[in-house]
Formats: sequence, C-alpha cells, structure tokens
Amino acid sequence: MTRETSPSDATNNDVNAILERYRFLVHPAIQETIEQLTAGPGRMAGYALGLCEADGTPRRTLGGKGLRPAITMLCAQAAGGEARAGIAGAVAVELVHAFSLVHDDIIDRDERRRHRPTVWKTYGIGPAILSGDALLALAVSTLAAEGAGSATAHLSAALIDLVRGQADDMAFEDRPYDGPGAVTVEEYQDMAARKTGALLGCAAAIGTTLGGGNAALAEAMTQMGRHLGVAFQAIDDVLGISGDPAVTGKPVFSDLRQGKKTLPIVYALQSDTAAGRRLASLLTDRPPAPATLRHAADLIDASGGRAFAYRVAAHHLETALTLISTSGLREPAAGQLSTLATFLIDRAY
Amino acid sequence: MTRETSPSDATNNDVNAILERYRFLVHPAIQETIEQLTAGPGRMAGYALGLCEADGTPRRTLGGKGLRPAITMLCAQAAGGEARAGIAGAVAVELVHAFSLVHDDIIDRDERRRHRPTVWKTYGIGPAILSGDALLALAVSTLAAEGAGSATAHLSAALIDLVRGQADDMAFEDRPYDGPGAVTVEEYQDMAARKTGALLGCAAAIGTTLGGGNAALAEAMTQMGRHLGVAFQAIDDVLGISGDPAVTGKPVFSDLRQGKKTLPIVYALQSDTAAGRRLASLLTDRPPAPATLRHAADLIDASGGRAFAYRVAAHHLETALTLISTSGLREPAAGQLSTLATFLIDRAY
Repeated sequence: MTRETSPSDATNNDVNAILERYRFLVHPAIQETIEQLTAGPGRMAGYALGLCEADGTPRRTLGGKGLRPAITMLCAQAAGGEARAGIAGAVAVELVHAFSLVHDDIIDRDERRRHRPTVWKTYGIGPAILSGDALLALAVSTLAAEGAGSATAHLSAALIDLVRGQADDMAFEDRPYDGPGAVTVEEYQDMAARKTGALLGCAAAIGTTLGGGNAALAEAMTQMGRHLGVAFQAIDDVLGISGDPAVTGKPVFSDLRQGKKTLPIVYALQSDTAAGRRLASLLTDRPPAPATLRHAADLIDASGGRAFAYRVAAHHLETALTLISTSGLREPAAGQLSTLATFLIDRAY
Repeated sequence: MTRETSPSDATNNDVNAILERYRFLVHPAIQETIEQLTAGPGRMAGYALGLCEADGTPRRTLGGKGLRPAITMLCAQAAGGEARAGIAGAVAVELVHAFSLVHDDIIDRDERRRHRPTVWKTYGIGPAILSGDALLALAVSTLAAEGAGSATAHLSAALIDLVRGQADDMAFEDRPYDGPGAVTVEEYQDMAARKTGALLGCAAAIGTTLGGGNAALAEAMTQMGRHLGVAFQAIDDVLGISGDPAVTGKPVFSDLRQGKKTLPIVYALQSDTAAGRRLASLLTDRPPAPATLRHAADLIDASGGRAFAYRVAAHHLETALTLISTSGLREPAAGQLSTLATFLIDRAY
C-alpha cells in the first residue's frame, strides 16, 4: 500500500532516523553499564530502561525514544566533537531519566508506564527504590569515569534541580485550588523548568562539554533545555487531562483524578471566567466522580486553559530554538537538534 | 560526684574529643549544603541528619556520631594535607550515609532510628524517597564542586557497591535457612563489605585523595574501610539479636523478627550442632512468637554464633589496623584513626 508523504511524515522520518542512529551507539553502552549490577538490581534496571521484560527476557529496543541521549550526542557534535565523545554523557543522562521515572512512579503511585506495569508494581516498593538508586549510582559513576569534572558538575546540579522540582510538584498538590494560597502560573513554570527542564538542559550541556565546547556554550544549552522542558511539560499537561490512553499509556483524566495542579488547570482556575470558577468548586469535591472529570476537562477548555498551555509551549520552544541557532553550534548537528526539539513539542498538536 | 577513670573512659574521652573536633568543622558545612534545598526537602534532609526536629526546630548537635566525616578528615591529615582539605569529602560522605539510612528504613519498614521516628514514618514514603534522593544529589554535587575527579570516582564506586550490598542483603531474606540454597558465611561477609564497608572505605579514600595522597594510598584505605565495615556489621548483627533497645534504639530481637540472615544466625545454622538444627526448625515458623525469639537468641549463643561474630569482628579490625599502620600515614592522625576504628568495633563488647 502506498500513500502520499505529508510534511509531517517527512519530519517524523527525519526524527526517527536521528533517534535510530544514536540508539545504535548508546544502546550497547547502556547494556554494558548495567551489567555492573548483580542479578536482582540489574534485571530491575534493565526493565526500567525497557531493555528486558520483567523476567529478564531481552527486548530488541530501548523502551523510551532515547531523546535525551540523542540530544547529548548531537550537542557533542554541534560543539565540534565526535558523536562518540558524548556516549558516556548520553548513558548517564538516560540512566538519570530512568532513575527519576522509577522513583516518581512510586511517589505518584502510578501503576503503568510505557504500556507496561511500573517497576514498583512489578517488583515491590523496596526493590524499586533500590533499583532507582542503582541507576543513579551508575549514572554518576559512568560520568566520573570519563574524567570530565565539569560534566559531573552539570549532572549533579541538574539532580538537585530535579529533586527540587519534584518536591515543588508534590507540595502543589496540598495547595488550595483558589484563593491566596493557590499555585500561580509563574510558580508552575519554575517548577517545570526544574522537574522537566533540568535534565534536558544537562543532557545538552554535558554533550557540548564532552564535545569540547566552553562554559558559555554549556550555560546556553542549560537554558535551552530548561525552556524545552517547560514547553514539553505544558504539552504533557494537556495530554494528562485529555490525552488518549492508547497514546499516553496512562489512564484517561489521570492528572485530574490525582488532584494535580498542572498548567492548564492552574491557568483555568485563575482565569476569572465562569468556567474557571465552576471548575474550582468541582475539583474541591474529592474523590471526583468519572462524569465530573469529563466535565472538569471541558471547563478547562472553556476557560482557555488548554489554549494557554499551547501558547506557553510555543513560546518556550521558540526561545529554545533561538538559543540553538544563535550559540555558534555547528551544522548539521545544530539543525538536527532543532528538528528534535520541535518534534518533542509538536507530538501533541 | 567523682569516680576513678578507667582505661575505657580514657579511650572514650579521646574518641569524643576527636569526634567533637571534626563535628565543629563539618557541621556548619553540612548545614550550609542542605540550605540549597527548598523548605520541604530541606527540612526532611535536616531531620534525617539529626540537625532539626520534624517541624524544623533546630537541634544543637548532629544526630549521628559523625564517625565517617571524622575518618575523612583524619585521612586528609594522615595523607599530609590540612583537615580543611577534607571538608567537602566529609560532607559528601555524611550525606550519602544519611541517604542510605533514609532509603533503607523505607525498604526494611523500620519505624525508629536513633530513638526517633524514621523519616518515612514522619513524612510519608513518597517524601522520604525524595529526601533520600536530595541527600544523594547534594553529596555528588558537593564533591563535584571540589573539582577532585578521583574523589567523585571513589564516591560513585562506593555507591554502586552500597546498592549491590543492600540488594544482596534483601535477596538473602528470601533464601532458605538451611540446605543447599542457604546463605554462606563467605557470601555474608562479601555483602557486608559492600553494604557497610564501601562507604567507610570511600570516606577514608576520599580523605587521603583530598589530602594529596596517591592512588595506592587511596586503594589501601578503600580496603581498610571494607575490613572495618565487615567488623562493624558483625558487631551490629550481635546487637540486632540481643542488643538492649535503650542502646540500639531498635526493638529487641528486631533482626530475628524480620527473618534477617545475619552473621551469627548464618554461622549457627551451618554449625552442625544440635542447637543449630533446632534453630533452623524454629525460624521456619513465621511469624515467630515472642517466646520463640528469646529461645532462638539462646540457641544462636549455644551454637557459637555470637562468639563467631566477635571473632570475625576482631579479625577484620586487626586487618584494618594493620593497613592503617603500614600504609605510610602521618602521625598523629594515623594513631587517632586507629583509636576511632577500634572504638567503632569495641562499642559492643
């Protein structure tokens, strides 16, 4: 069967080709790295990374798209180095990403991730805590072995930001839906820049550092990643409200169900619209009934919450793309980095 | 009231003076480090470190004895550096120690530590996971900021060992009490060298590295710490069976209650004595009644399990002391390190 190729198909093909190329380089290095662990934590780490099934049976591909490793490798090349120079950084970044998902899923009691049971659901909470710790230890060790002190400094600064962002996100759940204590749009974006942006920023900064770039370039890439993170989180928040479970791998309305205060919700509640006020009184009823959740999602749309999240995503993506094009990065890696960044945000439109 | 001073009082006074001196240097640096965290995780980290009460009210002293930081500082001096050179390492090591206790207590469901409710019992499992992660992130960041790459390498290698040791310890709980699948004394000592020894070894190795010592000295101190860890764990295991709750801060017979396979138990079960065989059949009844626990503790003594654990402790302490005295460390720090090592093991006799 043949069909015409749309521009969006072309972009997807480009992105898949980029991701595939780096997966081919990084995948074996990740596999080798987790072999430092003994059977139990090694199997859990492999499961978390999508390398194997729960019983240890190998899978052919990495579970995630490998976006962060690809960013690291592209940045190593964009800074003038070989892609290979970025491998240890790419491995470290992917391991930290997996670590944060494993612990997040315990904290949020999420039972499914990437269409599979989460690590804690599969192996229990204690083993899952330990496997997250193992992934983090391996990440630090991998980068430390590379002997690039400033790369390790980027990683550890991002780790602190990541934890602060997660803690803020958790603290938001206890804040009221409206009134003086309500979460503001600015607070939310600060949190997202930490929780989601810090790791994207360090993926890029570590890449340029390992590729031979200077501190100013690393700082620009740190900022680039933070903007990309806010944009990514805004789109993720829209999906968390009304995303198709078959695509997101999460239950429908999952963020509303958990009382999360994500960007479209925060905006809707402070929008001073009739829909926003109705939403506040609806969400205060916990636990909300299924019909209420559908109604709440509609009210968020009606008060402009979804449209606002898209505007935020577009604005921060634009800033990230400007940083990529004005920081003196080399082609063709810089262009590919832009393609990847755009894809990351466009996936939801 | 006056009384005569015994030799043991004299040693205790020496040890307390050493610990006090380093606490005075390290305590403010730890306080400053955790101020990088926001309110929530910062308070939890402070509570975990014994710096504050659950509500954030400051306490005057560190909760732990500060043995590991003291080892790092002494090793920095013993390698020819200033004590101050070791501060960042001492902070990192104490933060990693706190991280491992916070996560361990969740995994083991321990409700009390140092005579206070554990972090998860106080703040909940999710926040406790996150505060452990924050402590670890700060530890790596503190050492990375020091710019001593080999110190970070020592820390991350120890982290991997620590996690492997914890995973082995957890896996031992599912192994049978006797027969071909039973845990052996050798396996147990390997586990303890990782779980308890790795961090003591890296405390010492980081200290000598920051104090200007070479790689061979760091390796000798890594081994020294691992032996000290096995000795320490052997004593801790004796206390876990029959220690006074007022001293240990844990419930009486806690290890027996949890089905842990600690050194005296492993030895007793493989001792081929009548008491050992009786113990195996007793422990297979789960959950054990209180009277059973007392009887099991007596059987462990009768089959020589406690005496064996003391012999193991004495042997590994001796090896650690030999490494201290033959590695070319400088006085008076080397002598003080020996005093501290001896105290660490002698506390239970």
